[in-house]
Amino acid sequence: MEPSATDFSLQAGEGSSKAEGGRRRPAVSVGAVLPAGGSGERMGGGTPKQFCALLGRPLVSYTIQAVERISWISDIVVVVSQENVEIMKSIIKKYGHRRTTVVEGGVTRHRSIFSGLNAFMKSNHSSPLLQKPEVVIIHDAVRPFVEEDILFKVVTAAEEHGAAGAIRPLVSTVIASSADGCLDHSLDRAKYRASEMPQAFLFDIIHQAYHQCSDYELDYGTECLHLALKYSKTKAKLIEGPPDLWKVTYKRDLYAADSLIKDTMLQQICIISNTKGDATQVGFLLHETLKNHVKVVKSTATSVSENANHLQNILLEQCYNFVCINNKLSDLRETHQLVQILESTNASVLYPVVLISVHLDILENDFFSSGMQSLTKLAKEIKKKNILLYGLVMHYRKDDVKLQETVDSSVSLITALMRDRNPVFVGQILVA
Amino acid sequence: MEPSATDFSLQAGEGSSKAEGGRRRPAVSVGAVLPAGGSGERMGGGTPKQFCALLGRPLVSYTIQAVERISWISDIVVVVSQENVEIMKSIIKKYGHRRTTVVEGGVTRHRSIFSGLNAFMKSNHSSPLLQKPEVVIIHDAVRPFVEEDILFKVVTAAEEHGAAGAIRPLVSTVIASSADGCLDHSLDRAKYRASEMPQAFLFDIIHQAYHQCSDYELDYGTECLHLALKYSKTKAKLIEGPPDLWKVTYKRDLYAADSLIKDTMLQQICIISNTKGDATQVGFLLHETLKNHVKVVKSTATSVSENANHLQNILLEQCYNFVCINNKLSDLRETHQLVQILESTNASVLYPVVLISVHLDILENDFFSSGMQSLTKLAKEIKKKNILLYGLVMHYRKDDVKLQETVDSSVSLITALMRDRNPVFVGQILVA
Repeated sequence: MEPSATDFSLQAGEGSSKAEGGRRRPAVSVGAVLPAGGSGERMGGGTPKQFCALLGRPLVSYTIQAVERISWISDIVVVVSQENVEIMKSIIKKYGHRRTTVVEGGVTRHRSIFSGLNAFMKSNHSSPLLQKPEVVIIHDAVRPFVEEDILFKVVTAAEEHGAAGAIRPLVSTVIASSADGCLDHSLDRAKYRASEMPQAFLFDIIHQAYHQCSDYELDYGTECLHLALKYSKTKAKLIEGPPDLWKVTYKRDLYAADSLIKDTMLQQICIISNTKGDATQVGFLLHETLKNHVKVVKSTATSVSENANHLQNILLEQCYNFVCINNKLSDLRETHQLVQILESTNASVLYPVVLISVHLDILENDFFSSGMQSLTKLAKEIKKKNILLYGLVMHYRKDDVKLQETVDSSVSLITALMRDRNPVFVGQILVA
Repeated sequence: MEPSATDFSLQAGEGSSKAEGGRRRPAVSVGAVLPAGGSGERMGGGTPKQFCALLGRPLVSYTIQAVERISWISDIVVVVSQENVEIMKSIIKKYGHRRTTVVEGGVTRHRSIFSGLNAFMKSNHSSPLLQKPEVVIIHDAVRPFVEEDILFKVVTAAEEHGAAGAIRPLVSTVIASSADGCLDHSLDRAKYRASEMPQAFLFDIIHQAYHQCSDYELDYGTECLHLALKYSKTKAKLIEGPPDLWKVTYKRDLYAADSLIKDTMLQQICIISNTKGDATQVGFLLHETLKNHVKVVKSTATSVSENANHLQNILLEQCYNFVCINNKLSDLRETHQLVQILESTNASVLYPVVLISVHLDILENDFFSSGMQSLTKLAKEIKKKNILLYGLVMHYRKDDVKLQETVDSSVSLITALMRDRNPVFVGQILVA
């Protein structure tokens, strides 16, 4: 089965955007160009930021995913520098991106966007399948958190005005310096805005602007809205965007993006407990306590095998966190079956799935030797498939207050493991 | 003993700044005003960002620490809104900040800075100990990564020009919109700069400017350099600052700051092994392998008690990471002694100290029951003192290749624990 990227797409703050923009579709055909040719100078050399890994996957793949999950965007063109064409093609294949074409760009941002636009022209033989869209979105590969709502707004505004772009308030005052490096004047912050991405254009307007602009502009300019104004006499509509549109520029931005993705991944947990007696009570308490920390907690009380369809649906609803409650540490049958389902749905192609195997009964003498070994072995095996398995031993206590203490500390450990998704701790057995 | 904040100060990228600016002192007296009155609107309400905790400590404390570790800055005035005066005072007490005075600010940024400046005037009875400095630094409480080098540069430039401020290149193009919300024109990015902090002024120039400016400016303006230009006819010198000067504005910025602090804290590790036989070899291999991941690795091969002075010096050199190698899990004597030293030096007042207790021999039958219990108990106790203790069991293997595998996986676990400094995992025993 081919991995299906959009089925498992996930976005910071997705809920609101879906509710607001999910059912609207622009009346025009829409394509997108994602310039991804940057060299990463501002990161202090090394890997260009669009190829830096977040949870093991390159940043550019998150941005492609954010665009391709929107059904009304027909074709996506990613523009990379010549030396990265093959890398980009392998990323598209590995993460199952669809409707996405790689195009070799120029040496500057404007030249790369121009190459991307040219790929849509019928005369272009290297990408014969692409159709020239009525409206084209231009969006940076290093702004992964773009949502459907703002894309819809810039597209419909471009349809009406010919051009549109997202803006944000200025965080710092902007100043002009005189020739001697001193303050000449400062701009009134209220009158100016930062120009961000996405932007959208009637295809012919921006394409014509690129055709007419000078070599100097192609080499030193950066602002597409400016070209549309100058060469196509088109005054772009400016649209206030959300803060998440920011551009991953410095190392600290990668850290921020990593944390935001991790936050979003912790919105749903599924608890599976095919157990009896004490374990049922523990499952219930875990469920109730987890609800105070996580938006959606689902529980299922039958065995994984009897419940395969239901679990597949949960996966389709973008749940990447599972707690599997067992009686004995050595009993990993349910965990094994869950892993099979995870594998069959390709859930872990885009995001690491966290699976925590909870065990109550640790009275067995050979507990840590044999039980640990089988869990560690399984964990090592499935880590290759991006499934992160951790063990958790809960001391069951008859006293209600003490039991709740154990549950509280279990919930702290569970949410910390699921928040961090740290592959280094895979196969470890924690104790609550 | 009073906690001594500056002794243990730590700064992102500190090495370079110390080398370059450490020995230089401005020829004038210098004070600093840190406006910290923001309400945190852009964070989506909740705790104002200057009071948000990073590794358990409020952001504003990191910024104060960054300023007070510089010996040539005499007095620091932190300006907070009325409702936060007591909170701020308790922060200063708890983290042992010195030369720092809390002042109640006004309802806007400019009014707060003006209050801060007024605190330095002799006529001010509420802060009789403050001396009016020749040059005053103004720096945001939410820019914790300010370094001595840029502070020195703005102060000496202010001495010469009357005013000076740090600038950064613009990340986005700045545009002006027309009345109908469309693009009017875009600014040439090369000609403009973002005005950042720190700034510095001859005290009288900025104080006079605040005295003369209008109520409208006090309410709606934000740029101190602008006031100096308009009312004191002083053209500020603009100084290109490092990227770490950025302002913690959004939630993502807190995440970024958290990660940058954690990176810096992982620059030094100290290994303590008062052991014989196999353990000596393991200690050596750990040392050699850790060196590939961490800038400075120190080892000491005598017992903690014989080595107390040496360890205290290591603490003074800003080492917050310790690995203690023991033969038996139940033997925590060395670990206990190290904890005593940590406590006596107040090393953990400002930063959580990580202590990893490594154990080789796990042949004891009661290993996980008794050994684990004593480690968990100690961990729980010292967690209150901001010392984070984790256990690590290493399977000793005679085969060299296999032993190196164990060491490699130990190093991954050790560096992950030290990077994350997650209090939730305290007392857990991991296995390599």
